[in-house]
Amino acid sequence: MRIAVDAMGGDLGSELPVRGAIAALRKREDVEIVLVGPRDFLEKQVAEIIGDSSGISDRLFFEHATEVIGMDESPVEAIRKKKDSTVMVGFELIRNAKADAVISAGNSGATMAAAIRKLGRLKGISRPGIASFFPTLKEPVMLMDIGANVDCRPQHLLQFAIMAASCSSLLNGIDRPRIGLLSIGEEASKGNALIKETHALLSSGPLNFIGNVEGRDVYKGDVDVIICDGFVGNISLKISEGLAEAAMQMLKTEILKSWRAKIGYLLIKNAFVRFRERLDYAEYGGAPLLGINGVGIICHGTSDATAIQNAVFVAADMVQHRVNDGISQTLAEYNA
Amino acid sequence: MRIAVDAMGGDLGSELPVRGAIAALRKREDVEIVLVGPRDFLEKQVAEIIGDSSGISDRLFFEHATEVIGMDESPVEAIRKKKDSTVMVGFELIRNAKADAVISAGNSGATMAAAIRKLGRLKGISRPGIASFFPTLKEPVMLMDIGANVDCRPQHLLQFAIMAASCSSLLNGIDRPRIGLLSIGEEASKGNALIKETHALLSSGPLNFIGNVEGRDVYKGDVDVIICDGFVGNISLKISEGLAEAAMQMLKTEILKSWRAKIGYLLIKNAFVRFRERLDYAEYGGAPLLGINGVGIICHGTSDATAIQNAVFVAADMVQHRVNDGISQTLAEYNA
Repeated sequence: MRIAVDAMGGDLGSELPVRGAIAALRKREDVEIVLVGPRDFLEKQVAEIIGDSSGISDRLFFEHATEVIGMDESPVEAIRKKKDSTVMVGFELIRNAKADAVISAGNSGATMAAAIRKLGRLKGISRPGIASFFPTLKEPVMLMDIGANVDCRPQHLLQFAIMAASCSSLLNGIDRPRIGLLSIGEEASKGNALIKETHALLSSGPLNFIGNVEGRDVYKGDVDVIICDGFVGNISLKISEGLAEAAMQMLKTEILKSWRAKIGYLLIKNAFVRFRERLDYAEYGGAPLLGINGVGIICHGTSDATAIQNAVFVAADMVQHRVNDGISQTLAEYNA
Repeated sequence: MRIAVDAMGGDLGSELPVRGAIAALRKREDVEIVLVGPRDFLEKQVAEIIGDSSGISDRLFFEHATEVIGMDESPVEAIRKKKDSTVMVGFELIRNAKADAVISAGNSGATMAAAIRKLGRLKGISRPGIASFFPTLKEPVMLMDIGANVDCRPQHLLQFAIMAASCSSLLNGIDRPRIGLLSIGEEASKGNALIKETHALLSSGPLNFIGNVEGRDVYKGDVDVIICDGFVGNISLKISEGLAEAAMQMLKTEILKSWRAKIGYLLIKNAFVRFRERLDYAEYGGAPLLGINGVGIICHGTSDATAIQNAVFVAADMVQHRVNDGISQTLAEYNA
């Protein structure tokens, strides 16, 4: 499998994507990487980072791209103007069968727009979306959509359910993933108009729909997939990130108030680090674009090398398990 | 000021509301309490709880009510059938000028429905809503609506902004509260159709609207008021509660893995308790119903005595600062 990594995406420069890609190559021998960006610059950077390139240099390639889309650029305008941008060149590689997947920590709207422009939608899917993994007390849960589609109709949410369930099933080896619909009460009568109509649609189909789940149940881990529109999903994700960060800061403030607590903190430190890792979305390997005719993964703009490495692994798994074939098959079953 | 407390609301029986009411009486001498519920039962319970009733017994009253609305009952049906329920009797007290406010930890939909039935809406307000305080790294922020109105039009969100800003201004002594609109990006172009239209409405008025705020900014405390529809608000609240709970559990799991961390935990314990208090919504004193012709406060079904006590304080402050007059005045300024 050959994974194209946008080496210039993200807020923190090219070093972290490059380090992440190299780490992935070292850990998985079935993976090849194409770094997309200014070739000379990247070749030099790679040489600096890896003293000993044995075992990976024959699986590391470069694809020249001269432009970068900024985080604040309008996606549609940016991909029209910057034909030689890293994301456009990346998805062109998939179109020409020179790569199997693209990973970018850059402008996520532009990544989605470039994917649709270069690869098109999967047959039967009207709105591709973005799925994301949330940590829970049990296994991570897949939430979709986290921001691509802010105004949705019930039919769109149904398609998100079909896509996320297929992806979750194939990636995690779950036979019939439990699907929940994010709402404000468990009863079918609870929710806004969109949710009530979607509840009816999901109830009548062949999917393993277990009903509404409330916000407080998201982190319990009793479902495999949670469906919502992109507005609600994005706010759910961001509010969780914000709370996790604020909570750590509040706890630190409390700890610094006494010397006993400070000593306690030193003894507890490793537990804290492991806890942060569990909460840290970086660990969960990026957000798959679902519904496009290929494999694309969006990473957080502040992704570190581990996050990029894990995104490469998720991309490789998606290619290996033919997630898009699974989606098409589930869609056909639903329509039958 | 006379505050009516629904003594039978909540998941945990009547003891906690009664204890909370008594605690409030002991701490604030300008407050009188009416406990609403089965009189004989409540009188006996009060006698058991307070050995020495000196200083408060002349400010504690009882109002007989024979029915209780269950947490899962349909609000509209319940208030129609149970005319002698604690919440209906409570708001009747306000209508007859025998109380200034009602507090209930019972079925929140029924409390809202009873308030509207007995007191009606404030003039010019089409949709009363529920506001709630969120803890932040700075001062608590008021978020509205947290669940009363799941399908909103821009005009409703504008009214939420007017109501929450007036309430926040009078309760917290803030001259012109900073109002943010919950969305998925700071730019006016970011959000769903409802948010974009509301952004335009809020921008043109006299309110101190500072633009969109993202989910990750909710806990930073850089705004005083955050506006959203009741579906998004309820999910934001519940997902935060769920994450806070899950985070504490994950941290505990990590700590229990080593003896060093266990010792550290003992040293750090007080800091933990204070941290929990900051995150604990109970501390923030319930959720004001705004837009009704009177003062009503909804408490969490699992409220402890401290939460009820704090809700009494918030209710007393709302009466004292004439929040409803403030709302009517801001509404008039907006329309002028």
